[in-house]
Amino acid sequence: MTAVAVIGAAGRMGRATVDAVEAAGDLTLSASIGRNDDLVAGLEGADVAVVMTGPEGVDDIVATCVEQGVHAVVGTTGWTGPGLAKVRAALEKSPSTGVLLAPNFALGAVLLMRFAAEAAKHFESVEVVELHHPNKADAPSGTARHTAEQIAAARREAGVGPSPDATTASLDGARGADVEGVRVHSVRLRGLVAHEEVLLGGPGEQLTIRHDSFDRISFMPGVLLAVRQIANRPGLVQGLEHYL
Amino acid sequence: MTAVAVIGAAGRMGRATVDAVEAAGDLTLSASIGRNDDLVAGLEGADVAVVMTGPEGVDDIVATCVEQGVHAVVGTTGWTGPGLAKVRAALEKSPSTGVLLAPNFALGAVLLMRFAAEAAKHFESVEVVELHHPNKADAPSGTARHTAEQIAAARREAGVGPSPDATTASLDGARGADVEGVRVHSVRLRGLVAHEEVLLGGPGEQLTIRHDSFDRISFMPGVLLAVRQIANRPGLVQGLEHYL
Amino acid sequence: MTAVAVIGAAGRMGRATVDAVEAAGDLTLSASIGRNDDLVAGLEGADVAVVMTGPEGVDDIVATCVEQGVHAVVGTTGWTGPGLAKVRAALEKSPSTGVLLAPNFALGAVLLMRFAAEAAKHFESVEVVELHHPNKADAPSGTARHTAEQIAAARREAGVGPSPDATTASLDGARGADVEGVRVHSVRLRGLVAHEEVLLGGPGEQLTIRHDSFDRISFMPGVLLAVRQIANRPGLVQGLEHYL
Amino acid sequence: MTAVAVIGAAGRMGRATVDAVEAAGDLTLSASIGRNDDLVAGLEGADVAVVMTGPEGVDDIVATCVEQGVHAVVGTTGWTGPGLAKVRAALEKSPSTGVLLAPNFALGAVLLMRFAAEAAKHFESVEVVELHHPNKADAPSGTARHTAEQIAAARREAGVGPSPDATTASLDGARGADVEGVRVHSVRLRGLVAHEEVLLGGPGEQLTIRHDSFDRISFMPGVLLAVRQIANRPGLVQGLEHYL
Repeated sequence: MTAVAVIGAAGRMGRATVDAVEAAGDLTLSASIGRNDDLVAGLEGADVAVVMTGPEGVDDIVATCVEQGVHAVVGTTGWTGPGLAKVRAALEKSPSTGVLLAPNFALGAVLLMRFAAEAAKHFESVEVVELHHPNKADAPSGTARHTAEQIAAARREAGVGPSPDATTASLDGARGADVEGVRVHSVRLRGLVAHEEVLLGGPGEQLTIRHDSFDRISFMPGVLLAVRQIANRPGLVQGLEHYL
Repeated sequence: MTAVAVIGAAGRMGRATVDAVEAAGDLTLSASIGRNDDLVAGLEGADVAVVMTGPEGVDDIVATCVEQGVHAVVGTTGWTGPGLAKVRAALEKSPSTGVLLAPNFALGAVLLMRFAAEAAKHFESVEVVELHHPNKADAPSGTARHTAEQIAAARREAGVGPSPDATTASLDGARGADVEGVRVHSVRLRGLVAHEEVLLGGPGEQLTIRHDSFDRISFMPGVLLAVRQIANRPGLVQGLEHYL
Repeated sequence: MTAVAVIGAAGRMGRATVDAVEAAGDLTLSASIGRNDDLVAGLEGADVAVVMTGPEGVDDIVATCVEQGVHAVVGTTGWTGPGLAKVRAALEKSPSTGVLLAPNFALGAVLLMRFAAEAAKHFESVEVVELHHPNKADAPSGTARHTAEQIAAARREAGVGPSPDATTASLDGARGADVEGVRVHSVRLRGLVAHEEVLLGGPGEQLTIRHDSFDRISFMPGVLLAVRQIANRPGLVQGLEHYL
Repeated sequence: MTAVAVIGAAGRMGRATVDAVEAAGDLTLSASIGRNDDLVAGLEGADVAVVMTGPEGVDDIVATCVEQGVHAVVGTTGWTGPGLAKVRAALEKSPSTGVLLAPNFALGAVLLMRFAAEAAKHFESVEVVELHHPNKADAPSGTARHTAEQIAAARREAGVGPSPDATTASLDGARGADVEGVRVHSVRLRGLVAHEEVLLGGPGEQLTIRHDSFDRISFMPGVLLAVRQIANRPGLVQGLEHYL
């Protein structure tokens, strides 16, 4: 039985994690830790911590986990250079501990990213469309931006040139945002949750890869997979794709 | 038997029209008229002219058809105010003649536009995505812009407010072009022909209407439908939707 | 203020209706009626009843509403000939009362059905794909079956022949179910809610109309629209499309 | 310069291959071989043969290529056990020669198949939808059937159980064809070419991978890729996926 402490247990992702851990036969919940709880005491007896807090102070939280020898599966986003440096410094003193930073735990989103980067080497054209509910503050989404960066890196490495585009007359914004040469379009619609589509085109054919997140329970299989594997993955890993 | 003259018969749309007229049992081709042919002589004996020329001088061509009492089904785009005035003046002297100006003869594209305008009155959010081959010079496409305008007009008339959008941090262009308050996104991909999608969202639901043009033969059923009906539609009509 | 009684208030649709009525400024909840409550007493003071019960005994419930002069907006499905006859008999004695039987209150689903029937007159080919969660017992869904029937009726009326199909060698089931000559395909996938797609094809083009229900709150705008309009719609009406 | 002989050069795929070879700077067309031409004479001077004939006699054609030491890239489908045995026997005597049998040369179709098999290990549910023009004789398509078999094999190997399905009342055919436990649905629509979609579902999420072939030129990049690599791939290979 792996003992799991959930940090940020009062938030929506935290509560979903608590439920998922309690429902898993091979895991046991050692603590539900909120904002005002003592972190070091809460980590007592835990093998793995799942961190689902807001961005503020998350670097200290993860560093503390590492200092206590507790592996950390982290869903919090918004990491900065100094924050990462703090975690790396802690890991140097505890090299057998693992930290996974994952912006998206949905298996489908992770597979989409990997497939898109692989396919983008073989197609002349590629663009990204992401679609979310209209209460979202940022456009494009972090996941879409990350997808576009992965695609751009794969194309550079494979020596594939830019997607062709003969546009000479355009309304402002029609052709989307430019993320390292990959066009990204953000749709906002009431009723949606989180959706992403990668469109690839070559002579006479199109390949489309789409992921739909309908509910945050879609993140739980990825969280549990990480909890089960992290003991074998010491050091800092960024992106759940490295676990698949 | 309705006698049909095709003007602009050497272009790709013109040739497709010639083939379609010749294949129709109830129509007969009276003339194939090119750039250097005598227009008045060519219209001799024609009931209907199908005009598939470039924009230059098209107003004079259509006015001449009207003066000869020949109905005109016009696929040429890029009409200006003075051009329209010239056609209206000719129609005043020949009030039983019909002129149809249609930017898109694909039945599916026309139905999409009508359905989108109707549905947009009932949904909180609406956006348009159009997708074309990468040799296209303008973004958004004329059809997508026209669709967005029709949607905007329907929403104004029904008293529906703007689509909600909480975006505060955005990369340039991510949220698309603004056409009378409707967001329009233009994708360019090798392999595509001409595709348009209207996305509508309300609490807990989405309605999507999509049209794909794979081949210019998709325009022919609409052209023939117009040729068969125009005798009963005197005066100037803009948009094939009025014929359905 | 219109007074609304919700019958079947303990079910999931019933609870959602109670919440929606309470949140609407122009409606007031006069009663939440469950299985063991006195129906006639519960209808006291109500202008409109919303019926969200199971199929058993629903004909008696609706007949009682009519006898009390209370309009009935009914989401319960599975109506039979004898049940409908009972409601019609009650309406004969109370001709100013309205009854609406609607298998689907999502505005998008109703619009899809109407648009599909209209478009199906203009296209050579049409098929329906419906996609639902894997706990659903029936295939195709009632909504998809109803959609196919509406399409078939529109094509018969317009004199459109059957969709072309040259299949000579087929695995059992590959070409879907045959609903009055319209092929219907049922997909079952974990994670989905309720989705329906109508695909129409003609030479060189495709028109696709898709509806996604992500959440049962998508039914509430249609329920409230019906509650507000039913006083002006005496007699028996089947399908929310007649209210749009 | 690699010298290429095209066998079946009068068919539509054969002509497209001839055009593609002639347009490629690093390839030269050594022969266009039709039904009545002498095969051995035609293969003279060729490094690689591209075989785009009908199924009848294709095993003898490929065996002859191998006997002449000419690598064979084969798009002909409908291979049988005895036919394969004949080719294997020829390869035993000429072990440095390569034969590639590929039912689909579109890179996107090959990637779809590979991604679908990989993803199907991680999702509870998976189904396949293929869509083609209505002149197609077989349902499901060979490519869709092959995709479903690859998915089924990947799931067996990963120990994933069957997709959940609670259907108890069904119209005949609604749930599609059963290919080794994977449901496959075949849509036939005027206007379409060849399209395939794999739908994967897990709790709260969906992953969709779709390939569209709009034109047979989509096969040419895959054919040329095979022509360029086959000298390094001796023996019999089935499926272009092994070349990517």
